[in-house]
This record gives sequence, structure tokens and C-alpha cells, in this order.
Amino acid sequence: MSDVLTRLSAEIDSRRHSDASESYTASLFVRGDDAILKKVGEEAVEFILAAKGDDNGHLVSEAADVWFHMMVMLSAKGLGPADVLNELQRREGVSGHAEKASRQKED
Amino acid sequence: MSDVLTRLSAEIDSRRHSDASESYTASLFVRGDDAILKKVGEEAVEFILAAKGDDNGHLVSEAADVWFHMMVMLSAKGLGPADVLNELQRREGVSGHAEKASRQKED
Amino acid sequence: MSDVLTRLSAEIDSRRHSDASESYTASLFVRGDDAILKKVGEEAVEFILAAKGDDNGHLVSEAADVWFHMMVMLSAKGLGPADVLNELQRREGVSGHAEKASRQKED
Amino acid sequence: MSDVLTRLSAEIDSRRHSDASESYTASLFVRGDDAILKKVGEEAVEFILAAKGDDNGHLVSEAADVWFHMMVMLSAKGLGPADVLNELQRREGVSGHAEKASRQKED
Repeated sequence: MSDVLTRLSAEIDSRRHSDASESYTASLFVRGDDAILKKVGEEAVEFILAAKGDDNGHLVSEAADVWFHMMVMLSAKGLGPADVLNELQRREGVSGHAEKASRQKED
Repeated sequence: MSDVLTRLSAEIDSRRHSDASESYTASLFVRGDDAILKKVGEEAVEFILAAKGDDNGHLVSEAADVWFHMMVMLSAKGLGPADVLNELQRREGVSGHAEKASRQKED
Repeated sequence: MSDVLTRLSAEIDSRRHSDASESYTASLFVRGDDAILKKVGEEAVEFILAAKGDDNGHLVSEAADVWFHMMVMLSAKGLGPADVLNELQRREGVSGHAEKASRQKED
Repeated sequence: MSDVLTRLSAEIDSRRHSDASESYTASLFVRGDDAILKKVGEEAVEFILAAKGDDNGHLVSEAADVWFHMMVMLSAKGLGPADVLNELQRREGVSGHAEKASRQKED
């Protein structure tokens, strides 16, 4: 199902040097890292608030906003969703014992 | 590249009724929505702070933490990453004009 | 130095039933708790980003934004900064041993 | 009511060079700005979640946590709550017209 991430990532990367007046994504890159990170924070809070409500469509929409703006930040660093998926895949190979250790670290 | 999301989503779903002492994910479900959302917020802040630094590996790791905990929250609602990707794909079909309107809404 | 908090709190309370077109504060109350909380989250992220920079005036301004919007949220609940100061004062009386226990809880 | 802020600020400042094993506040300074900011972010999210609930005492406690950790961050920058209160007082003098302009900026 990740073809959409591949395409979206390529589109985001292509906007890094586009005219800011032509694209919301391009305008984010022009405004810089802090502007992108403010959007990440804002959308994360909106995801949290949506999760306290009952509208699943709204929650999914906020999740998409968070992932999109994180992908913009990753692109600004020369990274992309493939890096995140690789990291998730790497962890997948880790055994239950290691997960338990990780749980203790998290808590 | 999204096979990992499919597998991870299935694994998260399978932990919803597991013994909390066996799995970090299961312990999150037991602790409830607010505990999951605190982790989402905490990891989002860590992503923001990592983005202010120079360690790309750390940034990717924090991104994976955010996506993972959001997937746990989505699973608690009977949703998953496929819903988020569908939403991103739906937006993909929207024309540049609509994106401009969206940009004005966002700013 | 807290006379300003007393006056500001009274002013915020007085806006709870004002015309939203007359006052930013009144417009927040009309828009509801989630709108207020989005501002709290947004300003908290801006405080965090400002703290990563070198402009102390900007940091203080963001801190004022966070405290202001938290006071609006408290007012919506019939609470105010006096309650927060009372809580801080209550903790002040707690001995070093208790602080240590609190530290272990926090970490 | 702000004597408590004055005293707490002085106490926080005094911990900047204390032994980290003796005080939670001192341990935060030793761990550095990012550790302090993670706590600010974490407590802000807990304030937001508490505001979605019905326990006013819990909300006040989370507000105290946010203000405390923000004061620690301000102290690390050589600032304190007096600076925040001065900024709030400065804004207080601003007329309704300016507040309207500020509201338009905020929205």
C-alpha cells in the first residue's frame, strides 16, 4: 500500500525548489524548518484532540496531516518515508526480549 | 515499500488483547487512550527537537516512534495506516487549484 | 509581581460572555475548548522552538502566549492562575525527600 | 499572589549548580535544554488531555507542571517568570485596536 508514500515523497522533494506562490509545500520549504516544525506540532495536537472525539474520518485526516508535514521535514533533511519504514522494518526483526528492554526504556 | 506498514499494523492489532506483561504495545492498550496519546505527543516533541539537531539517524528513529504510536492509537479506534495512506492518495488526486485553496486554509 | 496575573485573569473571565467580534479572548471562548487547546499546543511548540534559538525576547513572548492561552483554558473551567500558584505553593512546602520521590516518578 | 513565583524562581535558579543527585531540578539542568524542553512538551500534552477530562484538580496540577518546567527553561536562559509577567503587563497596556490586530495575526 505504500506506493502513495513513494509518489508523495517524490512530489514533496520536487517542490523544494518550486515557486512558493505555486504550492503550499514549496511555501513551507521557503518559510524554513521552524515553520515546518510548527505545523508538525500543530497537527500532532490536532491528532490528539481528534482522538478524544468520535469522528474517525477526522482522526484519519489529522493523521494524514501529521505524516505529510513530517515528510516535508524529512525531505528538507534529504530523508524520506522510506527511511522511516526501513527503521520500522529493522525493529521488526528485533526479538521479544529486545522489545521488553525497549518497553522498560520507554516507560 | 509499505509491506512493513501492513505487517506492523497486523502485529499491533494482534496485541490489542495480549497480556500487557508480554508486550510494550499490549501494555499501551491496557493503559488506555490517554497513555497512548501522551506517547504520541512526547514522540512528536522529540521529533521536533531531533529536527533541530544534525543527527539524521536520530531524526528517523523519532519519526518511527511517532508513526508507531499513532498506529497504536489508530488501532485502538479500529483504524490503521491503510486509512491514512488512502487519505493521502485521495488528496493526491486533488488539483493544484484545490491545493492552493488548502494552502490558504492552512496559513 | 503577580498583580498582573490577578488583573489579566479578571479580564479573561470578563470576556467569557463578551461579543466574539470585539475581543480575541471572547472569540476563543466562542470557538470552544478544542480551539483553545490547539492554541495552547501551538504556543507550547513555539516556546520549544524559541528556546532552541538565541532570542530571549522571543522566548519570553512565546512564554507569555503559552501562559495566556492556558489561563483562557483555566477560565473556561472556572479556574485561574491563583489555583496554579496555590498548587506550586503547596508543593513548596513538600520536603526534599518528597521531591526526590517525585523526581523518581517523573523520570 | 505571585510571591510564590518569586520564591520558586529563586529556588530554581539556586539549583542550576547543585548536585544533580540531590534535586530533580538540578538533574534537569544537568541533562540539558532538550531534556527540559521534552518535559515542557510532555506536560503541555498532559495539560491538554487533562482539559478534555472532568478533574479540575488534575488540570491544575498539570498546569503547575507546565509552568514549573517552563520556569526551569527560562532559568537556564537567565530569565524568569518576572520577564513573562512584564510581557503580559506590557500587552495589558495595549489598546483594544491593537488587540484586534493581534487577533487577526493569531487566527
